[in-house]
Amino acid sequence: MFDTCLEHVRASVPLVHNITNYVTVNDVANAILACGGRPIMSDEPEDVMDITAICSGLNINIGTLNAQTIQGMKLAGGKARALGHPILLDPVGAGASRLRTKTAVELMAQCHPDVIRGNISEIKALAVDSSSTRGVDADAADAVTEDNLSEMVQFAKDFAAHAGCIVAITGAIDLVSDGKQCYVIRNGRPEMGRITGTGCMLSGIATAYLSANRDNACEAVAAAVSMMGLAGEIGYAALQPGEGNASYRNRIIDAVYNMDGETLRKDAKYDMR
Amino acid sequence: MFDTCLEHVRASVPLVHNITNYVTVNDVANAILACGGRPIMSDEPEDVMDITAICSGLNINIGTLNAQTIQGMKLAGGKARALGHPILLDPVGAGASRLRTKTAVELMAQCHPDVIRGNISEIKALAVDSSSTRGVDADAADAVTEDNLSEMVQFAKDFAAHAGCIVAITGAIDLVSDGKQCYVIRNGRPEMGRITGTGCMLSGIATAYLSANRDNACEAVAAAVSMMGLAGEIGYAALQPGEGNASYRNRIIDAVYNMDGETLRKDAKYDMR
Amino acid sequence: MFDTCLEHVRASVPLVHNITNYVTVNDVANAILACGGRPIMSDEPEDVMDITAICSGLNINIGTLNAQTIQGMKLAGGKARALGHPILLDPVGAGASRLRTKTAVELMAQCHPDVIRGNISEIKALAVDSSSTRGVDADAADAVTEDNLSEMVQFAKDFAAHAGCIVAITGAIDLVSDGKQCYVIRNGRPEMGRITGTGCMLSGIATAYLSANRDNACEAVAAAVSMMGLAGEIGYAALQPGEGNASYRNRIIDAVYNMDGETLRKDAKYDMR
Repeated sequence: MFDTCLEHVRASVPLVHNITNYVTVNDVANAILACGGRPIMSDEPEDVMDITAICSGLNINIGTLNAQTIQGMKLAGGKARALGHPILLDPVGAGASRLRTKTAVELMAQCHPDVIRGNISEIKALAVDSSSTRGVDADAADAVTEDNLSEMVQFAKDFAAHAGCIVAITGAIDLVSDGKQCYVIRNGRPEMGRITGTGCMLSGIATAYLSANRDNACEAVAAAVSMMGLAGEIGYAALQPGEGNASYRNRIIDAVYNMDGETLRKDAKYDMR
Repeated sequence: MFDTCLEHVRASVPLVHNITNYVTVNDVANAILACGGRPIMSDEPEDVMDITAICSGLNINIGTLNAQTIQGMKLAGGKARALGHPILLDPVGAGASRLRTKTAVELMAQCHPDVIRGNISEIKALAVDSSSTRGVDADAADAVTEDNLSEMVQFAKDFAAHAGCIVAITGAIDLVSDGKQCYVIRNGRPEMGRITGTGCMLSGIATAYLSANRDNACEAVAAAVSMMGLAGEIGYAALQPGEGNASYRNRIIDAVYNMDGETLRKDAKYDMR
Repeated sequence: MFDTCLEHVRASVPLVHNITNYVTVNDVANAILACGGRPIMSDEPEDVMDITAICSGLNINIGTLNAQTIQGMKLAGGKARALGHPILLDPVGAGASRLRTKTAVELMAQCHPDVIRGNISEIKALAVDSSSTRGVDADAADAVTEDNLSEMVQFAKDFAAHAGCIVAITGAIDLVSDGKQCYVIRNGRPEMGRITGTGCMLSGIATAYLSANRDNACEAVAAAVSMMGLAGEIGYAALQPGEGNASYRNRIIDAVYNMDGETLRKDAKYDMR
């Protein structure tokens, strides 16, 4: 149950190591705190192995990767893998540059992430190593829609089975699959795309969920995805006249902070394929 | 017309490549989204050319420059120039350190920015390579006032003509000149100086405007400057009792998000010299 | 008097050089502006000495240290020391990794900070070079409580006397000591721990206070600590239904912005040991 996954986060207060981009890092930290975890950031190669050793999970986000932080990602990923800590990879902009695609592919091969979370363009880039990705947003031509849903569910299952991990493809409709089953989640608001960092925040939150629900990883990721979308719905309903995307960002994090299991259980919108 | 410039941003949703400081980067991203564009950040030399190639404009801000990102700025600038993409340079702290002045001067020579946007101290530092700049704010002794307005308009025109680009000098009174004409803009609030990043946000927004208004660059920059000031006025009017600079920051971005052409046309305060 | 310390900041508008982590840097900048100072950030070794030379104080925070910024910290610290500028060290995560502990210890030895501000786990790590620190938050086993207060006051005095600086140990109860006297401060709210960066913001604010109160450093730091806690109380009281940690962050900075000497004098809760 999604509410149980949330309660496990709140009860265990997992410490999450984040190697993430400097654009949205503050929101990621506050989102992890909001859902009940604790964040720590470290990307220096000489620092990351000590830090990841005291954490319960590792969130790697390549949104503003550079030569030094790529090295940090690989060292942290290797250490987390050796310690059996769950790893989430957020391949921001895979398909948009050769360095991003190459780095994401290398991290998949070397660190064996438990979860890859991205938009459909990024995941397709990793799947076929070629894409119509334009920037860090999903290309409209790639969108998961009601019309292509069966096909995209199959794509998610195939990608997860081939990569040997859970995949979370987020957008208007979210898909979370471990290769066998696929959650189709319909929480969220289109206006979330007018805020920077909703995907990054979700990756941080999902890592906290993973860390607190080790025996139930696929459901935990689906619960995180559904909760983030639901926070987007609650935050949107709370907007006052004259408010826009900056206030919406705050209201979404606030909604995560105030989320309770009862609400999540009642308002999660998903089915299984 | 300023409102047409805004409508072109909303219609074309330009993707803007930002190499910007880590202090205000999140606000820059949300401000670009608020005005109707889309942001992507990348500063790694191995990444920047691929990223700038998929964008419509490049915003270079030296606020937290380092050896690696300076290299990224030069490579991205060269690529954007080769592709004919508009480039905006925000020389944060030029005059405050030798590295900042030198880097801004080199970027001017190597990348030929279409627009340079800074406060009067920074622009003077670039003009005379010596300045009384104190930190990243304009020195009071440098301020554009009603008393020295004619002289400063001439300075702006001369700088633009000599540098071969548009200059936007922002402060209590804003000047935007292409060397021939000069917009004198009086939107804004003094309290905007008590928020970090209003200048950086404006540079991001102005790059979106430039990207969406290729045949009308000077007016597009003036429209962006006026709109940012107007958002400062609207955000200030919306402040509730007990609110301060953190809420004001959010309310300014919110006001950009909700800005419409009608309001901008009606409340823009400017004349031409 | 604490209110006089605040008034000195507002009157002198000190420019503060920050070498700080990219997680909370925007909040640090806005917090410094809110209290009446002005922030500038620079961490590139080639840039830091020029920047620190034009400032009145230096805030070094190792929260996302890397090889390049560590070099910048040492150069800036050496320059600030040579110029007689006050230096504050925030040893984020000391005890959590060897690099963090080693860097903090080296900065103490090479730069002789005027103030070290951290949580009890971090300060203990510096004191004994071994700790039960878990991440960037204080370990519960280390907390300063009413039960161990006498012992902890003695610890603070001993640390300050041995290190030859002022120490500020912040948590549920805050201790500020110069080795002879110790302020015991009881402002604040436990919910401040659910926001990232309240400690980092305090370090920025305390550096502004130090810069503006050169003859009264220990009281100035205590005034900053008390004011930050009081802002946490005021911000908490201002929270609206449905608001959480993101809004709370904004409301705390807003409360600093609107703080007046009268309120600080009246509502500061402290005694001297």
